[in-house]
Amino acid sequence: MIVVLKKSASKADLDRLIAKLREQKCEFLLYENHEPVLKILTKQNLLSNDFFLTQPGVQAVFRITPAYDLAARKSPDQFTSIPIGGRKLEATDFMVIAGPCAIESEEQITEIAQRLSQLGIRFLRGGAYKPRTSPYTFQGMGEEGLKILRKTADRFQMNVVTEAVSSSDVAMVAEYADVVQIGTRNMQNFRLLKTVGKQKRPVLLKRGMSATIEEFLLAAEHILNEGNPHVILCERGIRTFEPATRNTLDISAVPLVKDLSHLPIVVDPSHASGKRNLILPLSRAALAAGADGVLIEVHDQAEMAKSDGPQSINFSAFDQLLKSLRQMAPMMNKEVL
Amino acid sequence: MIVVLKKSASKADLDRLIAKLREQKCEFLLYENHEPVLKILTKQNLLSNDFFLTQPGVQAVFRITPAYDLAARKSPDQFTSIPIGGRKLEATDFMVIAGPCAIESEEQITEIAQRLSQLGIRFLRGGAYKPRTSPYTFQGMGEEGLKILRKTADRFQMNVVTEAVSSSDVAMVAEYADVVQIGTRNMQNFRLLKTVGKQKRPVLLKRGMSATIEEFLLAAEHILNEGNPHVILCERGIRTFEPATRNTLDISAVPLVKDLSHLPIVVDPSHASGKRNLILPLSRAALAAGADGVLIEVHDQAEMAKSDGPQSINFSAFDQLLKSLRQMAPMMNKEVL
Amino acid sequence: MIVVLKKSASKADLDRLIAKLREQKCEFLLYENHEPVLKILTKQNLLSNDFFLTQPGVQAVFRITPAYDLAARKSPDQFTSIPIGGRKLEATDFMVIAGPCAIESEEQITEIAQRLSQLGIRFLRGGAYKPRTSPYTFQGMGEEGLKILRKTADRFQMNVVTEAVSSSDVAMVAEYADVVQIGTRNMQNFRLLKTVGKQKRPVLLKRGMSATIEEFLLAAEHILNEGNPHVILCERGIRTFEPATRNTLDISAVPLVKDLSHLPIVVDPSHASGKRNLILPLSRAALAAGADGVLIEVHDQAEMAKSDGPQSINFSAFDQLLKSLRQMAPMMNKEVL
Amino acid sequence: MIVVLKKSASKADLDRLIAKLREQKCEFLLYENHEPVLKILTKQNLLSNDFFLTQPGVQAVFRITPAYDLAARKSPDQFTSIPIGGRKLEATDFMVIAGPCAIESEEQITEIAQRLSQLGIRFLRGGAYKPRTSPYTFQGMGEEGLKILRKTADRFQMNVVTEAVSSSDVAMVAEYADVVQIGTRNMQNFRLLKTVGKQKRPVLLKRGMSATIEEFLLAAEHILNEGNPHVILCERGIRTFEPATRNTLDISAVPLVKDLSHLPIVVDPSHASGKRNLILPLSRAALAAGADGVLIEVHDQAEMAKSDGPQSINFSAFDQLLKSLRQMAPMMNKEVL
Repeated sequence: MIVVLKKSASKADLDRLIAKLREQKCEFLLYENHEPVLKILTKQNLLSNDFFLTQPGVQAVFRITPAYDLAARKSPDQFTSIPIGGRKLEATDFMVIAGPCAIESEEQITEIAQRLSQLGIRFLRGGAYKPRTSPYTFQGMGEEGLKILRKTADRFQMNVVTEAVSSSDVAMVAEYADVVQIGTRNMQNFRLLKTVGKQKRPVLLKRGMSATIEEFLLAAEHILNEGNPHVILCERGIRTFEPATRNTLDISAVPLVKDLSHLPIVVDPSHASGKRNLILPLSRAALAAGADGVLIEVHDQAEMAKSDGPQSINFSAFDQLLKSLRQMAPMMNKEVL
Repeated sequence: MIVVLKKSASKADLDRLIAKLREQKCEFLLYENHEPVLKILTKQNLLSNDFFLTQPGVQAVFRITPAYDLAARKSPDQFTSIPIGGRKLEATDFMVIAGPCAIESEEQITEIAQRLSQLGIRFLRGGAYKPRTSPYTFQGMGEEGLKILRKTADRFQMNVVTEAVSSSDVAMVAEYADVVQIGTRNMQNFRLLKTVGKQKRPVLLKRGMSATIEEFLLAAEHILNEGNPHVILCERGIRTFEPATRNTLDISAVPLVKDLSHLPIVVDPSHASGKRNLILPLSRAALAAGADGVLIEVHDQAEMAKSDGPQSINFSAFDQLLKSLRQMAPMMNKEVL
Repeated sequence: MIVVLKKSASKADLDRLIAKLREQKCEFLLYENHEPVLKILTKQNLLSNDFFLTQPGVQAVFRITPAYDLAARKSPDQFTSIPIGGRKLEATDFMVIAGPCAIESEEQITEIAQRLSQLGIRFLRGGAYKPRTSPYTFQGMGEEGLKILRKTADRFQMNVVTEAVSSSDVAMVAEYADVVQIGTRNMQNFRLLKTVGKQKRPVLLKRGMSATIEEFLLAAEHILNEGNPHVILCERGIRTFEPATRNTLDISAVPLVKDLSHLPIVVDPSHASGKRNLILPLSRAALAAGADGVLIEVHDQAEMAKSDGPQSINFSAFDQLLKSLRQMAPMMNKEVL
Repeated sequence: MIVVLKKSASKADLDRLIAKLREQKCEFLLYENHEPVLKILTKQNLLSNDFFLTQPGVQAVFRITPAYDLAARKSPDQFTSIPIGGRKLEATDFMVIAGPCAIESEEQITEIAQRLSQLGIRFLRGGAYKPRTSPYTFQGMGEEGLKILRKTADRFQMNVVTEAVSSSDVAMVAEYADVVQIGTRNMQNFRLLKTVGKQKRPVLLKRGMSATIEEFLLAAEHILNEGNPHVILCERGIRTFEPATRNTLDISAVPLVKDLSHLPIVVDPSHASGKRNLILPLSRAALAAGADGVLIEVHDQAEMAKSDGPQSINFSAFDQLLKSLRQMAPMMNKEVL
């Protein structure tokens, strides 16, 4: 951190600031000519920008090291492998997580899981708790849905990825899930982040729809800091002025996160675009940009889906998508899982 | 709702859609020339846009009535009075809710409450649970803070406005609070919304930083729908590309919400701007635009504040702000509380 | 400017950077411990951030003085008076610029000008060149419209505010106008900015719909730098994710610009909101936030307007608006012109 | 277009609206039960939404056909080939346009052109007129630069892509250029669009940084409507809240534009990201998403570049990029040009 004092800062202002830094046992260098400048050398993640801006006499503060530490990549080839269902997701793997938006019935999930597993898919997604903008639409099947999901996944030797929406549900959801998902609206539900940080299952953390990449990595830091090292990040589109897509897929987030962090990052083109016909090109773009996987909404009868129908694809479109990804993967040194 | 079918829609597509609407006992009109058009007449809030877009043959769907119902204003002079501490907040009242960002100690909150009550302030704010972007910064005093806040407010005959961050805390927070606040990061924490909807305290609901006004009113609908009619909305700035302010205060939200809803709306210029010197002009603008109140961060020693220091104002600046609001209020047919 | 080198920067990197700065006769301080830090002391507006980031070994660069100079306020009470039609617009004035979006006919503009002048309005707006998103809608009357506008304004002793859309038109527009307007889509049409900077008429510069406040002031700098000191800034809403209004009025821009610059700033609530019923509350908010005026679309028969009908108000609504502003102005130490 | 009247609309309101539509010889269907609904059948691009919203009694208007017509794709395989330098750019081609941000000297451009042509590049970019945010930075070499660029391109049998910034320069720029570029800040400089629409050279039209895709295609419509059918669209990033990249590359715009229009679309990862290390992954993503080319800033000595240094790549990085694109192209049925 670089802290710049105002031209008008008094000797007392400077002394008070220095005393505060010493109190926190923080090391720094002081350059006194013209407006004084401090370079903070330690404890940078413990000091917020606001801490400095609040002090009288401070003009500006600039962060030159990230505010997160555990999530930061320390060397170019650092990669956190994620253990799921008895194997480890490595840097050369490309996960395809597929399934319906919501679990609707045992028949539905069985039909979908069977078809997906025939295509070689190992990660089955499906929501039992659905955060919905309106209180009047389908809110999910709850624990009953989780039981069906687990049973079906076991039958087809698949792994379950499903969302927890409240800290009080985490233990229960973790019983049924192989990966616990945190949704975009909960990316800064810090109580929930801490709770999933205290349990053992890997966490799939979706980027908040208005979160910066720094805030995204700080949300992961909340989980890591509680002791759970297994976080998979998920770029799912950010909110912009463009109305043609539900959100704007921030494809640059993929190589940026790869540069800044050792955590895997996957892409959700279904929620990012909200449009069925964009899923194929955006999935390809995700792989080409270096992502570690994709999350795809697949439904056997989109017209029957209780939620997210317009962005779900059917088996035939999914089969074509999978073929395209498998063809492109070797070029990116990836294997499609 | 207006539903437009594709030119290419088949008779079977139309029949299937009609059957689905009948199944839901939804009334509609059908215009069959050229692309068929349906006008939905009932149950519009039970049917999502996605429901229609998912059906084969549907080209577009447009909502001409809001998706919320309880939050919608039914007549020009409808206004929901909010009972707080033995009196009712009416349409002619302008609430000033003031206090520190976070409760830091009994001394701090006593000093602030005393000064504020001397200035005639009846609503004391202060956070005991602080949602913080980084896991390494001050997270609040928890229940201990709430006890201090309640005791201090009682001593100075003030009402407490304080935040709950998790559904499991709501009952406890409601014991100490006169108004339970839901923060911007939790505007779509639906579990939390439902829980505050089931208890008796009025709720101050902050707009999510990337929530549209429609989503904001739908979040209120989640609370109203559980039986709690007392929701105060709070505009606190939205996220945009402009870096000069922490957020962009959406001042137009005030008259828009007044038009669409019967719920009171207050403005938080402190979080909206993040800049101390903007609090006065933005508070005036809020009153001039028709707001029902403001939420102001006041700290006796901003340079000691454990959070949000740069946007807190001191007593002298607050006194000046209050004088200005009291001078302007009669012109807006408002009385400053 | 503060320039921070990378830990990995070599002695040669530092020497090359220093040589470049000396070549430009730029003064600076160098702090060599740990990563070297340079504080640039002169010529800061001649050096872009990119200049530094391009050099090998540079990690980050932070600007602590603005990139504009002529537009920057040097003392708290500095204010640029604008001479229009024989009098000067001072810091205590609040300009009301009113009129139709587009000049449609002599009858139309005469009817409007007469009514406005009866209400005491001295600034008549109206477009003869209309930048339109679609090539198929009304593009304005051109020079014929300007002639009508000038003649009508003279008849009612009003001043003309009208837009130039191309550098090749500026001389001609300036013949008919008292104030030459630069529209939001042209805020970074630098050729046009330079051309209006070389002529004598005051310029009303509208903020680009995605321009930061720094870019807005740099656009003004392009005009000032050519020798024309008379720039009136205009906040007219920025583009955000919110669909309920045409743009989002950035009300904070008013006090921010007042802080950063000596140039007057007015607000255009008509384009900002696109909604007739928001004009009154947003105009009040503009005055309350410290603006130096408003720009209002007024049309005698909005339903006949060839452009911007939905956001135009009629004479009766305008009369009410004017009364409200005149009542509030003394409180802001302003007189409505 | 669907036009919905208010419940409160009178018979007179409806009659007036119908009279207006007849006056414009516009065909429509009227459904009179409940709130009347009109379906507009012809001249939809001549009628703006505002035209309807301005009429008394109109509640809402929804466009179900695009406001552009010439730019709209009429059949799935429609593609506008672009003739450049004696050959036609087809749907199976992937253009690589490379070169420095600005022409700085004959030596510079010769060195770059020679290296690029050795790598097989046929499209040489370089700006002679640079729109710059600050008036104090390098503004380009002007016509002198264009002469150098033309001469150098001829020497290495390359085609010139270069920007015109004002309608008064278009004829002159077109003399030296094979493709005339319109920059992001001029996407809605309608005078300039019309002027390039009246000349013969193909136009590379960059998306405005806050333009919706509909506005982007309407800007192309301005050019097409003047008689020039050869427009290449360019996605170059949009402005969002994310500060980690200069802009946010809207990768979804590629497949969306392919769906909506027959015009080719290329991607500019250099301006989109502003970061050298993102150029490779974003170029790959562009190809994978179906783009018809990329625009890459290449500089032999980025640290000497007079503008855009941080996002320029050197020959070795460019060579690697080109190899990667050539390897991936066949999978997308594309050949790299």
